[in-house]
Amino acid sequence: MKSYIPYNADTDFPIQNLPYGVFTSPKNTDKHIGVAIGEWILDLNVVSHLFNGPLLKDKQNVFKEEKLNSFMGLTKPHWIEARNTIQSLLDESNTTLQSDSALREKAFVKQSDAQMHVPAEIGDYTDFYSSIHHATNVGIMFRSKENALMPNWKYIPVGYHGRSSSIVISGTPIRRPFGQTLPVEGADPFFGPCRLMDFELEMGCFVGGPPTALGERVTAQQANDRIFGFVLMNDWSARDIQKWEYVPLGPFTAKNLGTSISPWVVPVEALQAALIDNYPQDPKPFPYLKHEDKFNFDIKLEVDLKSEKSPVSTTICRSNYKFLYWTAKQQLAQQTITGCNIRPGDLLGSGTISGDTVDSYGSMLELAWKGTKPIRLLNGEERKFIQDGDTVTLRGHAVGQDGARIGFGKCEGTLLPATPFE
Amino acid sequence: MKSYIPYNADTDFPIQNLPYGVFTSPKNTDKHIGVAIGEWILDLNVVSHLFNGPLLKDKQNVFKEEKLNSFMGLTKPHWIEARNTIQSLLDESNTTLQSDSALREKAFVKQSDAQMHVPAEIGDYTDFYSSIHHATNVGIMFRSKENALMPNWKYIPVGYHGRSSSIVISGTPIRRPFGQTLPVEGADPFFGPCRLMDFELEMGCFVGGPPTALGERVTAQQANDRIFGFVLMNDWSARDIQKWEYVPLGPFTAKNLGTSISPWVVPVEALQAALIDNYPQDPKPFPYLKHEDKFNFDIKLEVDLKSEKSPVSTTICRSNYKFLYWTAKQQLAQQTITGCNIRPGDLLGSGTISGDTVDSYGSMLELAWKGTKPIRLLNGEERKFIQDGDTVTLRGHAVGQDGARIGFGKCEGTLLPATPFE
Repeated sequence: MKSYIPYNADTDFPIQNLPYGVFTSPKNTDKHIGVAIGEWILDLNVVSHLFNGPLLKDKQNVFKEEKLNSFMGLTKPHWIEARNTIQSLLDESNTTLQSDSALREKAFVKQSDAQMHVPAEIGDYTDFYSSIHHATNVGIMFRSKENALMPNWKYIPVGYHGRSSSIVISGTPIRRPFGQTLPVEGADPFFGPCRLMDFELEMGCFVGGPPTALGERVTAQQANDRIFGFVLMNDWSARDIQKWEYVPLGPFTAKNLGTSISPWVVPVEALQAALIDNYPQDPKPFPYLKHEDKFNFDIKLEVDLKSEKSPVSTTICRSNYKFLYWTAKQQLAQQTITGCNIRPGDLLGSGTISGDTVDSYGSMLELAWKGTKPIRLLNGEERKFIQDGDTVTLRGHAVGQDGARIGFGKCEGTLLPATPFE
Repeated sequence: MKSYIPYNADTDFPIQNLPYGVFTSPKNTDKHIGVAIGEWILDLNVVSHLFNGPLLKDKQNVFKEEKLNSFMGLTKPHWIEARNTIQSLLDESNTTLQSDSALREKAFVKQSDAQMHVPAEIGDYTDFYSSIHHATNVGIMFRSKENALMPNWKYIPVGYHGRSSSIVISGTPIRRPFGQTLPVEGADPFFGPCRLMDFELEMGCFVGGPPTALGERVTAQQANDRIFGFVLMNDWSARDIQKWEYVPLGPFTAKNLGTSISPWVVPVEALQAALIDNYPQDPKPFPYLKHEDKFNFDIKLEVDLKSEKSPVSTTICRSNYKFLYWTAKQQLAQQTITGCNIRPGDLLGSGTISGDTVDSYGSMLELAWKGTKPIRLLNGEERKFIQDGDTVTLRGHAVGQDGARIGFGKCEGTLLPATPFE
């Protein structure tokens, strides 16, 4: 498969990928849905009339909207037809768009000229805790090696509801927050700027399919038709605030200060060649959580940190999506087991993805082991946690069809200093 | 103040109340915004052209929408002008609407002919834990009398993010969920229908004012302009599921199975005569949580339980909003302290409102003290938790201007039996 759009072999966005996003550009200040191809965006709003397959010919309006929700709210066969149509429209053998220079002029926008936006109205956002290495590391640090994993952890894809309003697109700066902490156990709490700011390397998964009714369950098997695609996600965390506030109802203001996602939603269909065995699960999960087919992915992930004092980034973490113990299907089955209704555009966070080696831990908390083992950056600076002015960049890619690179672009954010109280 | 609309002295909705809701009716299948007056609804969509005050004359469109969000997204002075306009239009001395029989015919809908809907698009829903008696009772039951309150409880209005999608309007049935529980400590978990279904007597508070930016804080003082109004709320809870799942990230599927709210949003302005002293706070809260003015309310609350085997309801709880330790302003200040942005239509749950006597506890867990002290219903049945077919009804009222009853209507739901797996 080859596109008439030229791109380098190492592009994140070859014709085998085709992730969806929402953008504005100097040409169009209204939000349009687009697909990334090389350094370009194919504007689906402009070519919506070309979706003439049996399922989509009456649904072309979903590509005219400002968010992906309506498209996500169709069914998996619709998504596959859309993908086939786009792949065909971009293929070198197809002249429909290739030879229509007036349409091409309107339909392609340079990514460097575009501003990306959160791709869907996220009705609800849930964050899970599905990396066994991360949960174990945190358990060792805050409890003990013997009781590192909670008794429920291998039975339940543990998760909690997060904040939708503060999910922001890559590039949005994040402000160091104020909050309460307990610097000395047993003493009075302290109020001031967070001192232990952290990132969390996660992937987010967009839920699709028609909304379910209250009381309806989606088992792990049924969830197959409900996973639309994936993005990179940085779940910024104020560790000292989290530690003081989280008992007994869970993390709250330590997490709602901002969650960054990458703009391009990589469809699950683009990741088929990256499917690998699911993480071995012992004990066997309850039937509602069971699925026999593979839904684990070999997606290489890395995190760069750049101090504002330095022109160079340091790669501080190399991890992989495959370290997740629970699959996204199992996460969705857990989300709905009590009958909670889902809506297209819901976002499921994987939880911090840590591997089994010290350089694969997905947070500063683990990388610098609670501040006891500072990380050295390439310019000589040390880091225990994130400092003001630091830029954190997440990247990820898998190998797709034809050996092509299925890239996720980047998920980036810079930490701004706290705003003093007036 | 007297309306030309006739109603009984004990109506929940006299001219001193004027709560907002969203309804459909045989006359109008589109959702309209309305105000309750006696047994009627004044359809604001139909009379939007009469909002001619200096602030609203250019904003009449907010009354043409299908949700209250745009109206909530204006400012407190707009809400006050709207209320004054409506009060004037309904006053016996005003002939504008009273004498226009054609307009009156269109503008008034019988509540008994209307279907009520969730009044706003709830972007994010947060549930707090602000009743000191409830937190203490739960602490005694699950820990000990000595360690009943967590160390952070008197410093932080503890809360967590809840599920928006499953917030439903009064009258919507709730289905007993399946889920994992741990019947025997240390043994394997069990999967099956919830055995400890509970209600929680809460009040919900709708946030208003323009959206804030990410990174912006709203202190307790500033929150004064941000509280739009209140509803009754039943935070249905699967206690056995909650106990097994909630460590360490908080309640999740035990709560997302459904949250019922009453349809009429009582504006904070209608509750001015019900203001009473705030609950004494020791230690003194941090400055961002401090406000000197009263923002506690004398709102009498009660919960009725009706078995499907019985024609009569039993009042099983008599509580009062005034038992809340933290005010809604303090809750909002906590929500935003790390810079979490808020949107009009956000909902803050008070947490279960328990008083200091055994008949004022706001949940079955507390009323029947973990099943050890079953409640006797009027028809002779006993209850430790909610049974299939039980209808739970929350009611509330305060005393308003002129001694009028400021009622909240009702928040009702019936528990349906669990749906077996196929």
